[in-house]
Amino acid sequence: MRPVSVAGIGKTAFGAFPDRDLKSLAVEAITSCLTDAGVGPEAVQAFYLGNFDGPSFTSQNHLAPYVAGAAGISGVPATRFEAACASGGSAFFHAFHAVASGLYERVLVCGVEKMTSQTTARVADILAGAGDAQTESSVGATFPAIFAMIARRHMFEYGTTREQLAAVAVKNHYNASLNPQAHLRKVITMEQALNGKPVAEPFTIYDCSLVSDGAAAILISSAEDSIRVAACAQASGPVALADRSTITSFAATQIAAHKAYAQAGITPRQVQVAEVHDCFTIAELIAMEDLGFVEAGQSGPWVASGATALSGELPVNTSGGLKAKGHPVGATGVAQLCDLVLQMRGQAGARQVKVANLALAQNLGGSGATSVVTILRKP
Amino acid sequence: MRPVSVAGIGKTAFGAFPDRDLKSLAVEAITSCLTDAGVGPEAVQAFYLGNFDGPSFTSQNHLAPYVAGAAGISGVPATRFEAACASGGSAFFHAFHAVASGLYERVLVCGVEKMTSQTTARVADILAGAGDAQTESSVGATFPAIFAMIARRHMFEYGTTREQLAAVAVKNHYNASLNPQAHLRKVITMEQALNGKPVAEPFTIYDCSLVSDGAAAILISSAEDSIRVAACAQASGPVALADRSTITSFAATQIAAHKAYAQAGITPRQVQVAEVHDCFTIAELIAMEDLGFVEAGQSGPWVASGATALSGELPVNTSGGLKAKGHPVGATGVAQLCDLVLQMRGQAGARQVKVANLALAQNLGGSGATSVVTILRKP
Repeated sequence: MRPVSVAGIGKTAFGAFPDRDLKSLAVEAITSCLTDAGVGPEAVQAFYLGNFDGPSFTSQNHLAPYVAGAAGISGVPATRFEAACASGGSAFFHAFHAVASGLYERVLVCGVEKMTSQTTARVADILAGAGDAQTESSVGATFPAIFAMIARRHMFEYGTTREQLAAVAVKNHYNASLNPQAHLRKVITMEQALNGKPVAEPFTIYDCSLVSDGAAAILISSAEDSIRVAACAQASGPVALADRSTITSFAATQIAAHKAYAQAGITPRQVQVAEVHDCFTIAELIAMEDLGFVEAGQSGPWVASGATALSGELPVNTSGGLKAKGHPVGATGVAQLCDLVLQMRGQAGARQVKVANLALAQNLGGSGATSVVTILRKP
Repeated sequence: MRPVSVAGIGKTAFGAFPDRDLKSLAVEAITSCLTDAGVGPEAVQAFYLGNFDGPSFTSQNHLAPYVAGAAGISGVPATRFEAACASGGSAFFHAFHAVASGLYERVLVCGVEKMTSQTTARVADILAGAGDAQTESSVGATFPAIFAMIARRHMFEYGTTREQLAAVAVKNHYNASLNPQAHLRKVITMEQALNGKPVAEPFTIYDCSLVSDGAAAILISSAEDSIRVAACAQASGPVALADRSTITSFAATQIAAHKAYAQAGITPRQVQVAEVHDCFTIAELIAMEDLGFVEAGQSGPWVASGATALSGELPVNTSGGLKAKGHPVGATGVAQLCDLVLQMRGQAGARQVKVANLALAQNLGGSGATSVVTILRKP
């Protein structure tokens, strides 16, 4: 395996864009990424697209050559990768290994989702497909309900509190307020977070990530550049909650993290900045534990203490996270990497952290059946 | 790149199975494949799933860990690959390179589609997503109409006749009559093929492939076994017909074939048996030309002469092809490889050809925007 570097990044703003279609979002991110890298579309040797369910959201399928062609990329392998909300991370995982193994010199990874043209009810139905249709979605267990059950159990087992969940929301909303490309740039107080519109006990609207449109792209290459992909690992676990021995941790994240740390030759506490998959506030807490930043059950007090704030010992979701930056599903895993690169380059503006030489992204699919962990490093 | 071998294959029958769901089909193919290879699910280091649109057909998404878990495969990377009707071939393409590059020792590729639980109209809509929604499906150009236009143009440019198209159907129906796992095992005459129910001028129902349920699986490994993957290449082209300089050949197939022949170090005419993507009769004719078996425009007379029959110089679609074996979209690309392996092992029963040491599969996505060409060889 040879070194793999980040050659360029590009992102659209995340938000609800009634006048934009999936193609225009993806092309904007790709064009911006290629410009950042200083190359044209002819430099791309393979195209890896992360997209969860474009066919259901937009009626357009076969999206990889569709998007690639619109961006001027033709002839090369163009494939769509689906792993629910980890589709972007999974596309990156496969692309990373293709470059590391010597198959290609330069690969473009794009993530995109156009969600807001559907009704809220239809969006919930489409997202519910990432759970188990037989035992979950068909009996009404949409994702807010599933993660609410997970939160309740975490509260029961470890004494995690609603205030600790809300602390994630308050932090991520604050970070997003400093991110000009975030979907919601509104600072919220603890009181607001706790008294938001109820969604599924114990969640208010502020515990839930956003339904967004957006795209992100990253070009990786075999050149020995200033930001390296130190590791990337993907793992799987059962789709249905009923098939797991515990629902307060995700085996897929634990396995992927273990492999990624070994590949990079680091320990969890060496990570200096992280973007993790906060589809719900509880998911960010569990990520802190599954990634080994704290022991199981300790994430609530740790996050509430400010440890993961911009000025804390390990800034987490400096972009605002899925919670407030937005969550265009297929784009998320790629956007996390773009946001880490901005931090590592010192281009994160008002949300810039002090030290960002070793960065980690964690992208979760469904209620944890897929997880991808990527580590970036400045050599 | 190190040698990659076929360690095992498994297939379900193709057909309309009202009492079978997607999961049970996939698990049957996987179990049969692992049994054939003589290993258990714990031997699988990564799971690559080819599936076109399970979410629309079955309401279940996140299908890779869903299927893998049901087959006893957990923890390892499990990803769904989508490239329209070439989803199975694309999953195999990525799996092949992952083993060839040394990333894994053993990878399981499964292709599956469960289509027949939807109405015919809904199936046509879902399939139409693989074309261009803006310029094709939204104005009623479903796939039979698109390929009918391609056929009309091929007839206009080269003098290809309806009888030559029908010769593909007659041959493939005959081959399927000898395949106990085929969807339709009914021999048809030229007269029947020409006088079938009209679908889209010049196509009758006998020019169109079937809507089927089914699954196929193949285990590949780095062991130096008796059937090698000599080459696998994937390429892309424009999704919309309107964006192409010609519609009587598919650039993606030509590029993929060119690469695959170079990788394998062979010329087209060395191929001894082939499974190609006959989603419509015209697609098999064009494949003969794009794969270099004959010059552009010569496929009609060549196929009508019997050259691609079981006893011909190059037997094509000995399984019965998509036309009569059936076309569970995501399964097709993997099933083609299984059928070639049966021929190479001498296990093809009544449809066994005499010499099958060098075999080729071609799997097309949509109306040609993706194509995957794979070459298998006995060393």
